[in-house]
Amino acid sequence: MPRTGRRPGETGTRERIAEAARRLFAERGFDRTSVRAVAAEAGVDPALVHHYFGTKQRLFIEAVDFPIDAVRALETLAVDDAERVGERLVRFALQLWDDPVVLPRLLGVLRSAVTDPQAAALLARLFTRQGPIQLLRALEADQPDLRAELVGTQLVGLAVARHVLRVEPLASADHETIVAAVGPTMQRYLTGDLGRTRSS
Amino acid sequence: MPRTGRRPGETGTRERIAEAARRLFAERGFDRTSVRAVAAEAGVDPALVHHYFGTKQRLFIEAVDFPIDAVRALETLAVDDAERVGERLVRFALQLWDDPVVLPRLLGVLRSAVTDPQAAALLARLFTRQGPIQLLRALEADQPDLRAELVGTQLVGLAVARHVLRVEPLASADHETIVAAVGPTMQRYLTGDLGRTRSS
Repeated sequence: MPRTGRRPGETGTRERIAEAARRLFAERGFDRTSVRAVAAEAGVDPALVHHYFGTKQRLFIEAVDFPIDAVRALETLAVDDAERVGERLVRFALQLWDDPVVLPRLLGVLRSAVTDPQAAALLARLFTRQGPIQLLRALEADQPDLRAELVGTQLVGLAVARHVLRVEPLASADHETIVAAVGPTMQRYLTGDLGRTRSS
Repeated sequence: MPRTGRRPGETGTRERIAEAARRLFAERGFDRTSVRAVAAEAGVDPALVHHYFGTKQRLFIEAVDFPIDAVRALETLAVDDAERVGERLVRFALQLWDDPVVLPRLLGVLRSAVTDPQAAALLARLFTRQGPIQLLRALEADQPDLRAELVGTQLVGLAVARHVLRVEPLASADHETIVAAVGPTMQRYLTGDLGRTRSS
């Protein structure tokens, strides 16, 4: 058991544990990741993980928490040409998920949300309430909750297909191919008429 | 299948185990379901589960396998008015997921696919290759693989939102509200132009 210099290294140790947890949650999901495994990955005693984070649940929440700037950036998508906000949202999401800071957090949440209720609540918040809903308020859309959730369904499905199931050709398609294919979907969910089916 | 050597009651026991497994996989996902728990739920010895199904993996595959009729029915959606095939696909999926025979299988796959590779392969096949791809071949669409996967992303996201995360108002929205909102998305993915963003 390596015992790092406690006082100067405290922040470093905490962050090392969080990073180890993030890696394991991303690879294995919540269920298959134990506190013991996180401790081993970080090279610390399991007691230290509990000391810093309490339960595995709390460790998970902190480890996968998205950088706040990424979420706030969503609001800025509403400025400019409102007819292209759907494209901008898809492009933003694709770039965000490819970010090495964000991808392990995304995978950790996706891999955990389907079985763990707290991870599910986090995913629901991330993909609907916390993210798109701000954008919809800025767009002053009707039925913002339903719209935010429709946007969330397409984003979750896209993230799962590209980063978890990795189905081809979708997983390797370049960003602009996906923006062209999915952008109009987002545009309809954000600003289109949801009450009528297409007349064409 | 040869029936030699089958004792009376064998089929009943096998099916009781499969049903118990289906219930537990649907509630807890693959990781949190043990062969021992399935045996207890079915009221049989764990050795009997191994006798009939071998590994937990094989038990999973058999327990969540979709009724073949449901998958084949997808192909029939291509007949009639091609401009409304998107609506028909959404309506078909919503009805299918509400079917008490199908829902536990769907939940079992969704709750397992994000961490278990075999379940992931099954989900990928169900939502793309096995299902929509037949419909796309019938429609003679270009880029059938990409289209099938785009359809899959929207279906997976919708199923997760309604049946796993249960976000409101989407989870309680009636079928026709969702058909109106998501039908045009499906229509674009099935028959629309994916290479250009909307000009309007």
